[in-house]
Amino acid sequence: MSAPRVLRTAAGLSEAITDALAAKAAGGTGDPAPSLGLVPTMGALHQGHRALVDAARAANDVVVASVFVNPLQFNDPEDLHRYPRTLEADLKLLGDAGADLVFAPSEAEVYPDGPPLVRIHSGELGSRYEGRFRPGHFDGVLTVVAKLLHYAQPTLPARYRAYFGQKDAQQLALIRRMVMDLDFRAEIVGVPVVRGTDGLAESSRNVFLDAEHRRAATVLPQALFALQDQARAGVPLDLAAAVARVQAEPHVDLDYFDIVDPQTLQPLVMDGQPLRRPALALLAARVGPVRLIDNLPLDPAAG
Amino acid sequence: MSAPRVLRTAAGLSEAITDALAAKAAGGTGDPAPSLGLVPTMGALHQGHRALVDAARAANDVVVASVFVNPLQFNDPEDLHRYPRTLEADLKLLGDAGADLVFAPSEAEVYPDGPPLVRIHSGELGSRYEGRFRPGHFDGVLTVVAKLLHYAQPTLPARYRAYFGQKDAQQLALIRRMVMDLDFRAEIVGVPVVRGTDGLAESSRNVFLDAEHRRAATVLPQALFALQDQARAGVPLDLAAAVARVQAEPHVDLDYFDIVDPQTLQPLVMDGQPLRRPALALLAARVGPVRLIDNLPLDPAAG
Repeated sequence: MSAPRVLRTAAGLSEAITDALAAKAAGGTGDPAPSLGLVPTMGALHQGHRALVDAARAANDVVVASVFVNPLQFNDPEDLHRYPRTLEADLKLLGDAGADLVFAPSEAEVYPDGPPLVRIHSGELGSRYEGRFRPGHFDGVLTVVAKLLHYAQPTLPARYRAYFGQKDAQQLALIRRMVMDLDFRAEIVGVPVVRGTDGLAESSRNVFLDAEHRRAATVLPQALFALQDQARAGVPLDLAAAVARVQAEPHVDLDYFDIVDPQTLQPLVMDGQPLRRPALALLAARVGPVRLIDNLPLDPAAG
Repeated sequence: MSAPRVLRTAAGLSEAITDALAAKAAGGTGDPAPSLGLVPTMGALHQGHRALVDAARAANDVVVASVFVNPLQFNDPEDLHRYPRTLEADLKLLGDAGADLVFAPSEAEVYPDGPPLVRIHSGELGSRYEGRFRPGHFDGVLTVVAKLLHYAQPTLPARYRAYFGQKDAQQLALIRRMVMDLDFRAEIVGVPVVRGTDGLAESSRNVFLDAEHRRAATVLPQALFALQDQARAGVPLDLAAAVARVQAEPHVDLDYFDIVDPQTLQPLVMDGQPLRRPALALLAARVGPVRLIDNLPLDPAAG
């Protein structure tokens, strides 16, 4: 694959998108409305991001990825400081995956007037789970996603899709809600979690896990898959046993582990009956130096 | 002028805008990018709104006005209940002013899922002055303006302008800041206050003033114009005298009266010297059954 074109400014990005979409529209395929797929990332790309770009590439004429470590969503300055920055490798992965354009702006380009005075507020949905552990995090995420959706907004007739990982389940639920509540002109596509052969969900922060912590961390997907097996088997979900399994692992400190509605993230009441509606098992834990999140969709047994 | 076309749904509005802009683009004027002017209103239109539509009409190929009483920005249910609703007269005024399209959606069309969970947050700039007296008001304003800007966003190459009155000075400052901070693709145009022959600023709430209260209310523009005269004359501004003048009027209860930076609405320190930079005199007062706001730009004397 050829190297993607890198844009450093919002104006340059918009022009490049218009040109690329116009070229597709003029291609004479008979389809008057070409499509744009946007993949926002913070870089440090791994196979989970690759799956986002693959999904965007499969469905759209033009694919744009953004690489921007958004300071607004880091509540911990130390976490921001040590967040991995690997632009050269990122551009290689994006090129291999067939991205057409990469938007890699400076902080001054995104926040020319300093921290924004007017922001997106994630409300009650953003104050639960991750929001409790990371105050302001989701307001920062939604604010930068709003900006990115505007930067890449096609200025000619086009379908417009943006791709986000299901691994960040609360983030995805909030972005869907923002697009709905504020009528952004983009379709949000969630892409399933990508896991290593040991079951651990891909995360940019996994590089900070040593071998022992990585082995310990696999209890998290194991506990999630046990719940998924119960849901599929049509037997009552044993959340208490799943929690106990995680707590039995000495290197793992659980922050939360709950079964929730996939859209609203409201906890579901487990009444000793088999699951009767789609749900999401959702957890976060500290493992050695790293805080990890993971989740798994739970579907009721057919019939 | 012919009657404007009324759209009740966001999808219908978007289609009508695309058609109208495409017709202008195909008109062969040589200009490849037609322009759209959006005038958001809550109806109960008066000469102040007429000035907004006139400004939009003078500068754009296609003019859209919206008429929607936004419940989200009313902190007082009684104020929402009694807010004047005069759609038939509004359509007449908009037709006379040459608006092409009118968007008049139902509450269910704008808020299909009830009150939005994700909103625009007006921050510190929205907590001062009007924000202190109307908690949540500006978050509600910015949220509906974000939605309206998205509804009317051209989907083909076009200039996009939205018109707001300078009478709501804090609202205008916040909308400008929102568009800047969140990168909306619209140019915000402020239109000067329109006043009656007695100097009172046009407001939809003026209909609730009887003759005696209306006469009393004229002390507000009188006090503002006195400050403007001082600024123009290059003499020190006497804010204390302006405040005293308003307070001497028995029917008028002053909420605030300040001289501020026009962008940030930070109070300016008056040091006994003539004004040296553009400023804004800003006030709110209760007059009989009505709360009124008004403001006037203050420019330093030339030379």
